[in-house]
Amino acid sequence: MTDSPMTRHVTADIDLDVTAPGKIVYQIAVARAPGLTVDENLTLTLDGSPLTPHEVVGVAGSRFHVVEPATTGKLLLSYQATVTGRADAPEADEAQLIEYLRPSRYAESDKLAAIAFREFGHLSSTEELLGGIAAWVGGHLSYVSGSSDPIDGSVDTYLLGQGVCRDYAHLVVAFLRGRDIPARLVAVYAPGLDPMDFHAVAEAYVDGRWRVVDGTLLAPRSTLLRIATGRDAADTAFLDNFGGGIRFNGATVTATVDGALPSDDPRTLVTLG
Amino acid sequence: MTDSPMTRHVTADIDLDVTAPGKIVYQIAVARAPGLTVDENLTLTLDGSPLTPHEVVGVAGSRFHVVEPATTGKLLLSYQATVTGRADAPEADEAQLIEYLRPSRYAESDKLAAIAFREFGHLSSTEELLGGIAAWVGGHLSYVSGSSDPIDGSVDTYLLGQGVCRDYAHLVVAFLRGRDIPARLVAVYAPGLDPMDFHAVAEAYVDGRWRVVDGTLLAPRSTLLRIATGRDAADTAFLDNFGGGIRFNGATVTATVDGALPSDDPRTLVTLG
Amino acid sequence: MTDSPMTRHVTADIDLDVTAPGKIVYQIAVARAPGLTVDENLTLTLDGSPLTPHEVVGVAGSRFHVVEPATTGKLLLSYQATVTGRADAPEADEAQLIEYLRPSRYAESDKLAAIAFREFGHLSSTEELLGGIAAWVGGHLSYVSGSSDPIDGSVDTYLLGQGVCRDYAHLVVAFLRGRDIPARLVAVYAPGLDPMDFHAVAEAYVDGRWRVVDGTLLAPRSTLLRIATGRDAADTAFLDNFGGGIRFNGATVTATVDGALPSDDPRTLVTLG
Amino acid sequence: MTDSPMTRHVTADIDLDVTAPGKIVYQIAVARAPGLTVDENLTLTLDGSPLTPHEVVGVAGSRFHVVEPATTGKLLLSYQATVTGRADAPEADEAQLIEYLRPSRYAESDKLAAIAFREFGHLSSTEELLGGIAAWVGGHLSYVSGSSDPIDGSVDTYLLGQGVCRDYAHLVVAFLRGRDIPARLVAVYAPGLDPMDFHAVAEAYVDGRWRVVDGTLLAPRSTLLRIATGRDAADTAFLDNFGGGIRFNGATVTATVDGALPSDDPRTLVTLG
Repeated sequence: MTDSPMTRHVTADIDLDVTAPGKIVYQIAVARAPGLTVDENLTLTLDGSPLTPHEVVGVAGSRFHVVEPATTGKLLLSYQATVTGRADAPEADEAQLIEYLRPSRYAESDKLAAIAFREFGHLSSTEELLGGIAAWVGGHLSYVSGSSDPIDGSVDTYLLGQGVCRDYAHLVVAFLRGRDIPARLVAVYAPGLDPMDFHAVAEAYVDGRWRVVDGTLLAPRSTLLRIATGRDAADTAFLDNFGGGIRFNGATVTATVDGALPSDDPRTLVTLG
Repeated sequence: MTDSPMTRHVTADIDLDVTAPGKIVYQIAVARAPGLTVDENLTLTLDGSPLTPHEVVGVAGSRFHVVEPATTGKLLLSYQATVTGRADAPEADEAQLIEYLRPSRYAESDKLAAIAFREFGHLSSTEELLGGIAAWVGGHLSYVSGSSDPIDGSVDTYLLGQGVCRDYAHLVVAFLRGRDIPARLVAVYAPGLDPMDFHAVAEAYVDGRWRVVDGTLLAPRSTLLRIATGRDAADTAFLDNFGGGIRFNGATVTATVDGALPSDDPRTLVTLG
Repeated sequence: MTDSPMTRHVTADIDLDVTAPGKIVYQIAVARAPGLTVDENLTLTLDGSPLTPHEVVGVAGSRFHVVEPATTGKLLLSYQATVTGRADAPEADEAQLIEYLRPSRYAESDKLAAIAFREFGHLSSTEELLGGIAAWVGGHLSYVSGSSDPIDGSVDTYLLGQGVCRDYAHLVVAFLRGRDIPARLVAVYAPGLDPMDFHAVAEAYVDGRWRVVDGTLLAPRSTLLRIATGRDAADTAFLDNFGGGIRFNGATVTATVDGALPSDDPRTLVTLG
Repeated sequence: MTDSPMTRHVTADIDLDVTAPGKIVYQIAVARAPGLTVDENLTLTLDGSPLTPHEVVGVAGSRFHVVEPATTGKLLLSYQATVTGRADAPEADEAQLIEYLRPSRYAESDKLAAIAFREFGHLSSTEELLGGIAAWVGGHLSYVSGSSDPIDGSVDTYLLGQGVCRDYAHLVVAFLRGRDIPARLVAVYAPGLDPMDFHAVAEAYVDGRWRVVDGTLLAPRSTLLRIATGRDAADTAFLDNFGGGIRFNGATVTATVDGALPSDDPRTLVTLG
């Protein structure tokens, strides 16, 4: 991890067919944060004609881009950003800290509380819990593409013993909440991820700061770039469709950092920047 | 429903034993809202000695009262409020409206979307959907005390066909979200409820306003008084314990309105005031 | 449907790699039944060398073919049968009829009992129930290849509104049991099925006889040929592996009937022959 | 454990109101088994008038007593048996051994297979597995009356970490099957059980014999007396009602053995006698 100025380049291209007009919500833009300078461009076209999305700002600088195409057609989103600097540590308000202790759709900490106690009840400090839970999830799950469904949550992942990045993160979040540590999911751009895609990690509130937990160890934490933040994948989906119909044809993502990719030591605490 | 000044009186008394010190969070106070004048008193004692809770304000004026007792002992909360006037219609910010479209822990709208489409796909206006869903839930569930567990959600309720007020509200919320209407859960004081207790209803965003939906028809909607607001019961619990141990000995709730209890016509749209 | 002699030809070829020696159980042979003349051939080879399976007879003439290969290697099963005549109506012993009223792994009739009552409680005769349930399942599910996982049961299918033949049959079975009609799953060869594969249907005990229910309407019932019979897909899997490891490379199935494929009228009661 | 002749005395009294006539199935009689001499009496009365049940014999000597009362009324069953000797070891047919490897409604071994592998994958002999699984279940579950619902299965029990005898037995059965050991549930009379009630244990097929596994350690295994045998509690319920309505008012059970209650060493293998 480096404290010197850092430059990251990210892109996302999303190809949809709108089969029935409705409201389409993207969450793909880099989250606003003090400390970051973002030079970005977002274009949307429907059958080649430009559409202007409406931007809504959510939790932790998350940005929704909302469009309501009037007709069916091919909807292409193209986003590029060059990001300089590191984000300041995200703030935590008290009401949010209570909210992030609670069970959520895909991180059912109420169902996993007994297991969290059994596995981690002997760890008393939040820092030990963070490390213990990350190591457990990394050691007990196998990363298997296609092993989970969109409706699967942390209980399914725990039972199956397999998952992808969102499943790892959900299980980390559920265990942390089960041990009374506020925890949430963050969708990120992840330089170094292979194969490249959107990535998801957990964020835990430890000793007054939000810290990144990534049981997959697939990309260095210090160069991750926040997109969306929420209770779980229900909040951080890069694409949602309400009241219409879409056919998803694919997404292409890139993320790089200027200079060498940093190394990452899982034993250290890292704040998303 | 009346537009004239209205006076409501509510009380809550909660009796706990703290078996291991931790953080205890109450959500029992009347939510802050423009239009309401609240004259209230909240006292907390641990083995007879007063404790001062810390107040945190959350969504829609919700108030958490947080205490961290240093020792074990009997923890008694006593709350009384006299409330004059009606709350202004709650505001809706765009990010929240997106949040309340998403599945949550106990209102798994993703799992119930196909059924919501099958049952309500023929209803096109949000107002019809609101009425249709409320009537369906009221007509298809039986109110059976003790029929649900704290970890049960809307899918369990749907399958069982039984529940209590929170289960009715969760199923309403899940169906509404499944039909792309923002919906949330509200814990309320409910004059006229019998047997008297905390009550839970759904709130749906229809034509620019939050409207109350109560499939149970157990209390008139116009005199309900908002306590807590959130995605589902995970957010609106009147009592939570983090990192310690408690034994819950019981809660006593009262809620009355000066003058005659109003009547309620389920076909009308009512805003929580 | 014809009562004249009928000749059916079926084949199954299954290609596995044994990655760790264990016990492998096939259920692919035509079930033994009075009234059927079966001229068949089953060969098994491990890396080209013949293996002799051990045959175990189960419920309703089901036949397991069990091998315990001593080494890893490519295990090929090849089965061909020419079947003349029709099976006599299967017998029903009283203990089985009780067993087939009970919930099972993938036909959780206890969880769907309230819905079965709500949807079919007005139908009083077993014959009406059979028709009503078959029509409901055929009308409310969409046949979508790949829509279900091996661990999905009738509740998942009901919620999703999609499935393949085993899911249709599980939901039929669960609803029938929920209305107190003994019901079970049957794996069959299905002349006319397109794309050709193993097929699964339900069997319901109505007025003293086992009757076929196939919500998919994908093949005429009168020419289906019984392979395996049981409570649900846990009992009728064409391939199981215990204590070893296998990689499944594919199965090829054929099933034809001499002469024209008969038509099928879903309103008639048909016994598997 | 003694090999000398043994005399056990058991009784069951069941009090129901028949609210709508249907078919009522009891499984409370001592299972038939070579080696046992049973002197028994079973009476059934509806509003004081005797009813004669119909007996159906099921798996492993299980006996169903079936009545179809023509009217509503109070239905009282009273059963007393004096049993001399020990049952011979139960037989195992090959088809059953395959059946008892499969997942069932309340012992979803397919869902728990990954966990069974993780926890017990290092144990290679069936005898070690039996001991290891029994010790794990006994050590990780807490016996809590009322902690489970009738629709709860082994996954629910595993997650909750609590249960009653049937839940312990379901989890043992699911883990055993997950490690490829045939396993089943047995409802028993249990001299020494406190509080006295019907009891449930697991039976595992180890080195050619069915062996009793009781994670609860609540009664000596050598004096347990088999009632019903099956895949899980769906098969061994002491009372079922099909097509009618009943209100269950209570059951009283007694079970004693002449002479001193034997001790039990969980490290030994015991066959149900």
